Amino acid sequence: MFSKEEKDAIYKVIYNRRDVRSFLPTPIPEEAIHNILKAAHQAPSVGFMQPWNFVIVSSDETKEKLAWAADKERRALAIHYEDEAEKETKFLGLKIQGLKEAPITICVTCDPTRGGSHVLGRNSIPETDMLSTACAIQNMWLAACAEGLAMGWVSFYKKNDVRDILSIPPHIEPIALLSIGYTEHYPTAPILETANWEKRRRLDDLIFTDQWNNR
Amino acid sequence: MFSKEEKDAIYKVIYNRRDVRSFLPTPIPEEAIHNILKAAHQAPSVGFMQPWNFVIVSSDETKEKLAWAADKERRALAIHYEDEAEKETKFLGLKIQGLKEAPITICVTCDPTRGGSHVLGRNSIPETDMLSTACAIQNMWLAACAEGLAMGWVSFYKKNDVRDILSIPPHIEPIALLSIGYTEHYPTAPILETANWEKRRRLDDLIFTDQWNNR
Repeated sequence: MFSKEEKDAIYKVIYNRRDVRSFLPTPIPEEAIHNILKAAHQAPSVGFMQPWNFVIVSSDETKEKLAWAADKERRALAIHYEDEAEKETKFLGLKIQGLKEAPITICVTCDPTRGGSHVLGRNSIPETDMLSTACAIQNMWLAACAEGLAMGWVSFYKKNDVRDILSIPPHIEPIALLSIGYTEHYPTAPILETANWEKRRRLDDLIFTDQWNNR
Repeated sequence: MFSKEEKDAIYKVIYNRRDVRSFLPTPIPEEAIHNILKAAHQAPSVGFMQPWNFVIVSSDETKEKLAWAADKERRALAIHYEDEAEKETKFLGLKIQGLKEAPITICVTCDPTRGGSHVLGRNSIPETDMLSTACAIQNMWLAACAEGLAMGWVSFYKKNDVRDILSIPPHIEPIALLSIGYTEHYPTAPILETANWEKRRRLDDLIFTDQWNNR
């Protein structure tokens, strides 16, 4: 059971966790990284398949390559906003990653073959392996925030670039690049909300009772 | 910043959260459900697209239909173990859902069209919408645990059965059926570990440095 104080702490981290893209070069204690990875490994997984791996990147050379892959993708994506000049400018002004600054980036992967051919639950919904990996990432995010660390999920890359850079086999999914480090200003609201890119929706509009569209 | 006590509470819920399939009929306070849904809505989402909806099912009639869909899928899946008699028996002995017992089941969905055609980040990796929804589910799980409630993720169903039962449009993904309720015995280890279905892997075996397979 959880006391009032414990509940408050749990909601505090859930409400305060933010996606961060600006990091200080300050090194991260090994214990904190270990706590974050242990939290990941406590996530639920369909059929208890634990499909995740963690590639911890700290060498400057590899970080440069990942940053190159992300920047290439950013410039390619900007082209899709070319008929909306204002949005394109806004997009190119957003800081979408801090891969070179962050002392550590963890590539979280998902192995769809783990647990054999007929994983319980995955046999019905194959993408439950990736969903399990996302649950592990959310645990990492909350743990990082609890450790006083900032984390940012980079999802601007072609998977094969990340596979090539980190020697990841072709059947393994590089789900996320997670940059971790200390930050000077931990944001109080989502960066994309502050930048007027998107608004937070009203929760009540997203809830239905018994049937879709029934409020 | 988080105090030592707050950190302990956060790791406590991450370590103690379990997938539960046995529920008491005791009603759930509305405030607890609201807290769980607010926690979901605080999850990160790519491009801040917030692709989730929540269909709260509490009518016996709808619960019966969902339980029927899950049981049909369970029996269909058992056939894939037919050449491994021992595994088939073990599989059929597992309790895979508590949809009829739980006072409430929440169907969490993902709308891939939310936020328009060029959602930031989703343009590179389309499945980031589902991954965001899984992060919301993990927040719900931790919140439910903090509220003293048990939650079980049912992933045994054909999506179109769930769409038919809950009138969900064809382009919307029913990501999970989450049963929530009080339970008599909150498990201390994963059910599939206790049932000798799968073992917990050694975390150290899942961690690489700078390159895949480099320990």
